[in-house]
Amino acid sequence: METTQIKGSESKSKLKRSIIDTDIHGRAPREGMLKYMPRIYREQIATFGWRLPAQGGMFLNGGTNGSMQDVNIPEDSQNEDTYLDYLRKNHLDTYNIEYGILTGGGYEVHAAVDTDFAAAVCSAHNDYYLERYLSRESRLKGSILIPKQDPILSAKEIDRVGSNPDMIQVVVSNGAQKPYGHRFYHPIYEACVRHNLPFTIHVSMEGIGINNPTTGAGHVTSYIEYRAARAHIMAAHMASFIFEGVFEKFPTLRVVMMEAGMLWIAPLIWRLDQDWKALRHQTPWVKEPPSEYYRKFFRITSQPLELPPTTDMIKPMMNAIHCETNLMFASDFPHWDFDSPTHAFPKLEENMWDRIFYQNAAELYGLPQRKASKGVALA
Amino acid sequence: METTQIKGSESKSKLKRSIIDTDIHGRAPREGMLKYMPRIYREQIATFGWRLPAQGGMFLNGGTNGSMQDVNIPEDSQNEDTYLDYLRKNHLDTYNIEYGILTGGGYEVHAAVDTDFAAAVCSAHNDYYLERYLSRESRLKGSILIPKQDPILSAKEIDRVGSNPDMIQVVVSNGAQKPYGHRFYHPIYEACVRHNLPFTIHVSMEGIGINNPTTGAGHVTSYIEYRAARAHIMAAHMASFIFEGVFEKFPTLRVVMMEAGMLWIAPLIWRLDQDWKALRHQTPWVKEPPSEYYRKFFRITSQPLELPPTTDMIKPMMNAIHCETNLMFASDFPHWDFDSPTHAFPKLEENMWDRIFYQNAAELYGLPQRKASKGVALA
Repeated sequence: METTQIKGSESKSKLKRSIIDTDIHGRAPREGMLKYMPRIYREQIATFGWRLPAQGGMFLNGGTNGSMQDVNIPEDSQNEDTYLDYLRKNHLDTYNIEYGILTGGGYEVHAAVDTDFAAAVCSAHNDYYLERYLSRESRLKGSILIPKQDPILSAKEIDRVGSNPDMIQVVVSNGAQKPYGHRFYHPIYEACVRHNLPFTIHVSMEGIGINNPTTGAGHVTSYIEYRAARAHIMAAHMASFIFEGVFEKFPTLRVVMMEAGMLWIAPLIWRLDQDWKALRHQTPWVKEPPSEYYRKFFRITSQPLELPPTTDMIKPMMNAIHCETNLMFASDFPHWDFDSPTHAFPKLEENMWDRIFYQNAAELYGLPQRKASKGVALA
Repeated sequence: METTQIKGSESKSKLKRSIIDTDIHGRAPREGMLKYMPRIYREQIATFGWRLPAQGGMFLNGGTNGSMQDVNIPEDSQNEDTYLDYLRKNHLDTYNIEYGILTGGGYEVHAAVDTDFAAAVCSAHNDYYLERYLSRESRLKGSILIPKQDPILSAKEIDRVGSNPDMIQVVVSNGAQKPYGHRFYHPIYEACVRHNLPFTIHVSMEGIGINNPTTGAGHVTSYIEYRAARAHIMAAHMASFIFEGVFEKFPTLRVVMMEAGMLWIAPLIWRLDQDWKALRHQTPWVKEPPSEYYRKFFRITSQPLELPPTTDMIKPMMNAIHCETNLMFASDFPHWDFDSPTHAFPKLEENMWDRIFYQNAAELYGLPQRKASKGVALA
C-alpha cells in the first residue's frame, strides 16, 4: 500500500527528489472530534458549544479565511478519507513528499480558560489524528497537542501517546502566558526528553484568550502588525530558553520554531552575544555565547520564507542563522501564504538544498530514508 | 560665557571635530523637583512618598546601579551646578560636544497609575531642566517629558514649554499601554507638529507599572532578556506608526527611537515590505512600502551600538537601515554601557562619520552650526 502510493506519486510529481515538508495542516472538524470526547463534555458542548477562543475572531487573514483562494477542500466529516485524499492528490503526490508532518490545527486550546476542557480536547485531537490520518497514510507524521496551561497534564498526554512512532513532536502555540523557558513548563520538557520528542512552537493564538497581548506595547491593530509581532514573541521564547538554563537541565531537548520567519534571529543572537559578554555574570549557568545555544538546540522552518531584498545579502544572512543545519523546509499547506517547494526558494547549492529539504528534518525527527533518491538531480 | 566654554573645551578634547550627542542623562533629584510641584502634591509626598514605580525594582542593571563603575557623580542637590559641572568637565569638554541632548530621567511617570500626579511631575521635571541645565549651559538641549497616559494633558504640557527653543523634542518611555501609532495618542502628535518637535521614544519602564508585560509572551526573567525585548517593543511601535497611518495624518512628524539598538530594523522592514505586497489591500492608506516610511519618518540613535560579528556584514547592514541619513550618535552618558565617541564605532568613511556624529541630528533638531569645524580631520 505505502510503496504503491509512493511509486504512484513519483510519476506525476513536480520534484524528482523526494522531500520532507515539516508544516502541513490537517483538519479535525469539531463534529468529527466529538466521539473522542468524554460524555460530560459532549453534553456541555451540546448545551453551550465549544468554549474555545477563535484565532479568526480578532484579525483579518489572507486568502479565503486563511487558505489559498483556489483551494476547494471537500467538507465531509462523515467520510474519514475526504481531506486525506485531497491532501494526497494535491500536495503529497504533487511534490514527491516522502514525509509530511501534520502540525494541527487545534491551537485554540492554548488560549482556553478551562484547562481540563483543553486537556480533553487535546486528547480527542490527538486520537482523531492518529485514527484519521496517521494510521491511514504512512507518509504523514503527527504532532502531540498538549494543554500547556497545565504542564503536569501536558506530561500525562505526552506519556499517553508519545511512544507511538507516528507522533514525532510536541506542539504548542506561540501565544503564551509566560515565555517557554520558565520553570513552570519544565515538566513538559522532562516528558519530551523521556520520549525523545522535540518541543515545537507554532505561530497561533498570540494575544488571544488567556495569552498575553501580542506585543510588549499591547495589542496591535492590523494583521500585518500581528504577523511581524509573532517573530518577536518567538524571540522572547528563544531568549527565555537560553537564559533560564533549559538546555543545561535538558541537554537532549530540541526546540522547533515554526512559521515565524527567520531573519530576525540574526540580530537577536548578535545582540544577545554582545550583551552576554558584558552581563554573563548575571546568568552564570549560560556557559556559551547565546548564538551557540541557538545553533545547537533550535531548529526553524522556512515558511513564510523571508529573504533580504538584495541578492548579495541572501547568502550571508542564511549563513548567519546557520540555515545549512538549522532550517527545515515547510510549505504550510493549504494556507494562503503556502510556499511551493519548487518556487519559494532562490537557487540553492545542492548540499544546502538537500539539508533544508530533507536531511535537517530527517535528523531531527529520526526519520529513516525510504527512497534511494539521495543525490538525484533536482527537477 | 558660552564662547569661552567652547573654546576652553577644544584645547583638551579628545576630538578635533565637534559632535552632537543625542542621549545624555541629566539628574533631577526628587528633593530638587519639590519646589516646582503644586502644594497639594508636596503635602502628599511628605505623607506617602513619591507614588512612582521604579525601573530598578524589577531587573538587575549593569555597572553600579546602571552607571559606569568609575563614575563618581557628586550628589549635592542644594548646589544647582554640581552635576552640570561634572557633566561639562567629564563629557561635554572631553568629547568636544557642540550640542548635547538631555533625555531625562523621569520616565517613572510613564508607568504611574495617577495621571494627574504624573502630569505634575512632568511639569516639575521640565521646569527643573529648564532652570538647572538649559538656562545655564547653552550646549545642552532638553526633552519635554509628558504624561502620555493622557494625550490631552500631554498636548497642554507641550504647548506650555514647547515654544522654548531649548526644548527640542518630546520624550516618552518605550514601555506602553498601547503601541504609539494608536489613534488614542494623536493629540500628542498634533502638538508635536504644532511646535515642530520630534516625538522620541526612549527605552525605559517596559513591563512596569501600568505598562504591558515586556513581551507578547509575558514578563521575562533576566536583564539580558529584558534588553533584547526592548528592541521588539520598539518594533511594535514602528509598525503601529506605519500601519495606523500616522504619517498620512501628520506628514511633518518625525519619530526618534533611542537606545534600543538598530539591527533589528533590517529584518523588520524586509518582513513588512514582503507582507505589505500581499496584504496592502487591508491597509490602503499605507501607500508606500513600509521601508520607505522608516527611511523618511524615523531616526534612530546609536547606543548601545550593535554591529554584526563579521566585518563583511557591517556595511551592508548599516546601508540596509540607512545609517547615513537615519542614525545619530548617542553616548548614553553616564550609563554603564556608555559608548565613547572615539571608540564605539569602527572606522567610518568621513561622510558617514559626519552624518552620524553631526549632520543627521543637526537637520532633525534644526540646530545651527556653531563652530567652523566641518571638514576638519578627525582625531
